[in-house]
Amino acid sequence: MQGTTPPQPAAYAPTDRTVPTRSPDRASYDRELVHSILDEAYVCHLGFVRDGAPVVLPTLYARVGERLYVHGSTGSRPLRAAGQADPGLPVCLTVTHVDGLVLARSAFHHSINYRSVVVHGVAYDVTDPEEKRQALDALVDHVVPGRSADSRPASKKELAATAVLRLDLDEVSAKLRTGGVNDEPEDLGLPHWAGVVPVRKTYGTPIADPDLAAGTELPDYLRAR
Amino acid sequence: MQGTTPPQPAAYAPTDRTVPTRSPDRASYDRELVHSILDEAYVCHLGFVRDGAPVVLPTLYARVGERLYVHGSTGSRPLRAAGQADPGLPVCLTVTHVDGLVLARSAFHHSINYRSVVVHGVAYDVTDPEEKRQALDALVDHVVPGRSADSRPASKKELAATAVLRLDLDEVSAKLRTGGVNDEPEDLGLPHWAGVVPVRKTYGTPIADPDLAAGTELPDYLRAR
Repeated sequence: MQGTTPPQPAAYAPTDRTVPTRSPDRASYDRELVHSILDEAYVCHLGFVRDGAPVVLPTLYARVGERLYVHGSTGSRPLRAAGQADPGLPVCLTVTHVDGLVLARSAFHHSINYRSVVVHGVAYDVTDPEEKRQALDALVDHVVPGRSADSRPASKKELAATAVLRLDLDEVSAKLRTGGVNDEPEDLGLPHWAGVVPVRKTYGTPIADPDLAAGTELPDYLRAR
Repeated sequence: MQGTTPPQPAAYAPTDRTVPTRSPDRASYDRELVHSILDEAYVCHLGFVRDGAPVVLPTLYARVGERLYVHGSTGSRPLRAAGQADPGLPVCLTVTHVDGLVLARSAFHHSINYRSVVVHGVAYDVTDPEEKRQALDALVDHVVPGRSADSRPASKKELAATAVLRLDLDEVSAKLRTGGVNDEPEDLGLPHWAGVVPVRKTYGTPIADPDLAAGTELPDYLRAR
């Protein structure tokens, strides 16, 4: 689907709600950076408004070009709302990576190194069966690249039972903190250790289902992790 | 502060918005479980409504008894709103741990093992200096236990420059998926590998600030990670 997308500018256009009121130097609209942050995670936090109050639910997502797809498994409420609403459901979709704990000499300057993306927009229920099938493949491959081709495809009944939301990447910003400690000059001589503790997501040894068909080996795409 | 809290029932009372419409068997209101999920993370996703639209921002939080404190560093907008609003700012605070990738033989049954907590409520700006100081200590110690005592305490000026939101744990639910693959019986003979890939958060070797005072050693509370 990316092939049908016209060339895009190198950055998203900032809007009133994507320019942060604090630390604007940490904000970025760079398209490649936004894509890289989105592609490295698979769980987002999806916010929407119900009865005037905010709701935030974790859910799976995948990027296909300039479009995000959100899985309906945790989102029956927003999805039902999107199906009913015209013209769709206003959402805010946020993805965050924690990269490090920043320990300063002063309590005040403690921080977190992170990369986040916030997407504002209107989500629509995907009704076209072919688009839905491609979105579901993308969701599976986003979690484990190559996996959708190595599993039984969804049946028509399963497709019908799955809800998928579509959200265009249009009003988008990244925000990040990188680097070391920012202590006050007069605190540098204090005897407290200061620095950064890296944080990362790691994968353990895969645990095979006890009922695997005889001779089924761990696939290569899981060995590399 | 926990000492002043009266004994609490073992579970939070479900409400209309904490009973999920899907997979209600995955929901829990158990207080200890909720606390354990909250205490294991330090970044939440805070949702609120601005101009009728949802906003979701990642931010640091800490639990003190039956109360959450949210740091203002990424939240000047919600915090300003909370300061102005009467009686506070409606929020939804969500914390999610990803524990495993569940690879089923069928694309449809792919899933994620996770533990999440969703807190609905009204957030208030913390104005009492002593409560704010304790909240900031809790925020630092929540990320690195023992750290607040090993750093320079915030000055009055720093305290004044920091905004903290308070949110009571009242309308709260946990949701979790654990265990293995749930494939259809007729799919068990398929040749696709199935099982669970564990996911965890790990810490790398701490990187000391280049300007550490002479003789400053890595503290014990960072060695254990």
